[in-house]
Amino acid sequence: MINSTNLIRPLVQKLHPYIPGEQPKIKGLIKLNTNENPYPPSPKVLDAVRAAVDARLRLYPNPTAQALCERLAELHGCQPENIIIGNGSDELLTLAVRAFAEPASSVTQSKHAEATVQYFDPSYSLYPVLAQIHGALTNAVPLAKDFKLPTSAHLKKQGQWRFDAALTLITTPNAPSGRGFPTSELEALCQQQKGVTILDEAYVDFADENALPLALKFSHVLVARTFSKAYSLCFQRIGYFVGPARLIKALHKVRDSYNVNGLAQVAALATLDDLPYYQQNFRRIIASRNQLTAELTTMGFKVLPSQANFILTKPPGPTAEKWLQTLRDSKILVRWFNKPNIKEYLRITIGNKKEVSALLKAIRYTISSPVGG
Amino acid sequence: MINSTNLIRPLVQKLHPYIPGEQPKIKGLIKLNTNENPYPPSPKVLDAVRAAVDARLRLYPNPTAQALCERLAELHGCQPENIIIGNGSDELLTLAVRAFAEPASSVTQSKHAEATVQYFDPSYSLYPVLAQIHGALTNAVPLAKDFKLPTSAHLKKQGQWRFDAALTLITTPNAPSGRGFPTSELEALCQQQKGVTILDEAYVDFADENALPLALKFSHVLVARTFSKAYSLCFQRIGYFVGPARLIKALHKVRDSYNVNGLAQVAALATLDDLPYYQQNFRRIIASRNQLTAELTTMGFKVLPSQANFILTKPPGPTAEKWLQTLRDSKILVRWFNKPNIKEYLRITIGNKKEVSALLKAIRYTISSPVGG
Repeated sequence: MINSTNLIRPLVQKLHPYIPGEQPKIKGLIKLNTNENPYPPSPKVLDAVRAAVDARLRLYPNPTAQALCERLAELHGCQPENIIIGNGSDELLTLAVRAFAEPASSVTQSKHAEATVQYFDPSYSLYPVLAQIHGALTNAVPLAKDFKLPTSAHLKKQGQWRFDAALTLITTPNAPSGRGFPTSELEALCQQQKGVTILDEAYVDFADENALPLALKFSHVLVARTFSKAYSLCFQRIGYFVGPARLIKALHKVRDSYNVNGLAQVAALATLDDLPYYQQNFRRIIASRNQLTAELTTMGFKVLPSQANFILTKPPGPTAEKWLQTLRDSKILVRWFNKPNIKEYLRITIGNKKEVSALLKAIRYTISSPVGG
Repeated sequence: MINSTNLIRPLVQKLHPYIPGEQPKIKGLIKLNTNENPYPPSPKVLDAVRAAVDARLRLYPNPTAQALCERLAELHGCQPENIIIGNGSDELLTLAVRAFAEPASSVTQSKHAEATVQYFDPSYSLYPVLAQIHGALTNAVPLAKDFKLPTSAHLKKQGQWRFDAALTLITTPNAPSGRGFPTSELEALCQQQKGVTILDEAYVDFADENALPLALKFSHVLVARTFSKAYSLCFQRIGYFVGPARLIKALHKVRDSYNVNGLAQVAALATLDDLPYYQQNFRRIIASRNQLTAELTTMGFKVLPSQANFILTKPPGPTAEKWLQTLRDSKILVRWFNKPNIKEYLRITIGNKKEVSALLKAIRYTISSPVGG
């Protein structure tokens, strides 16, 4: 019998196995932990997907999601060659690491920049995972006070940031803080970067501005978008990048041939035909976000200004971890990260009106009652 | 402006861009070029998928397709830990290369075996592509006469085969030849291999036997299966591997968090509830395969014995390339590979009865008429 450990790359053996996000099956649970949209897809989208469930399922889907690329190009004022569709934007982030960053083992120390995947801390927790799988180096640089974007001058002075990193990933609006980074500040930073820079706009539809023009201006900037959050299609797995044709072409070279399932392509196209439905939901979510922020602030919570469909908030009294459990006891699931710079905070997805009311009620009750040990 | 070529890894720059399979939009075309199943999914599967197109699309799918793993484990007499589900089996092949083979740049010459991805020639044309993307070494070893599996003794004598290759990929039944490899011969070869060995059974439901027991017997053998071909779900992207838990766990470590869309999970589960529908289709396809083989043989074609849903055949008279064009003129699309050892052949997918009749009619007409220059 062959020893299995010898069969697996040492790099992979050292990786921590992926721990899936909690998918609780508690009846009546209010799930505010994974930033899903509280509203379903548009009825027209559901109809379009249902209508496509026929004999065509036996056939391969369009390998490049060409029709969708063309529609998105129209929407964003670019060419189809500036767009690539992925099995969720997560897949495209994986491809970007593989296309733009060297494995550390293949470069000498003087060329470590070529193997460096860089991002701010905190930001999307997937970035270091993707870098580690690839064997790339990671450079996690702290955000400024209250999770603001540091200026280039500050980054130069602080010294850890690499303007020559092969790949820089910026979540904007930031997760988990919810803070929106001004496009002007992002542009100033992009101007300094020598490597590929991805502006990950998974939550941008809930924000006041977006940085898409930068992907059409710079030869090294890509913008990541997804249909998961704002367009209620997590289940379908579909996202995209916008950017320079040469970078997009490089990503095509490393992707699987039929990476995007056909019904997701149908759903995304139908979504683009019914944008006003979604824009109304954005307004509802933003209104709920403002209401929740105001009411929590009144109750002594510190709430960071959010441009996303969630808030990051430091609760009063007991620890955030304790609050997590207290809310869970009230059948409300929020997110707590056991990480140094954010462990005093809870991240709460903006639910629908009923869910926001239930959350506020549970918090009011907790504050007015002694919290048990 | 930054020069884009400096932004892309040299390895990736050297890759040939992926050329998608032909997706012709000619009306009335009979498409026998990509081995899709001529029969649609079961009506019960279509109903189940339609019924799942609802508000749940806003939520993330189960990240490990747990319910499906459990059902497949029952079906194959193993544990859920012996199964991993992929975005098509193509994705799992990508993950296998990443988990089991080193990039060549990271090993010294004496350790080239650790960076070697090995396969027979001809076999699934994706294997070298995946190895090249990863920067692994490829070792393409010719099959025996008429595309039979070489014996270990023959491989040792011939000298090119590496029994110590990190990863060996064997398409069985073979594509593009259609030939089935006896499980006893596969077992004898697996016994000699020191590295991970994947038996890629994409077409096995059309064959007389399968090698799944080997994945449950050896600690280094995985079997790849897909719902695409036999179960008419190409559009949905879903496949799986069966094998030792330690290898499966390594694949989980390198996959994307939510790699399999939710509706594909629903479709696959419903498929397993209606296997007799598919088994009837297998019998129909096998009957058509036998009929086509017999009639083509009568007309002077050399037809290799097939255990798949396609045949590889050497046509009489004009070149295979010429036949490709002649059939295309009759609105029938088959596959021709411009590769030394198979360019005298056509690969023809087994269509439904009407398509097989139309194909035979077009061939009869061509044979009875002079073929123009």
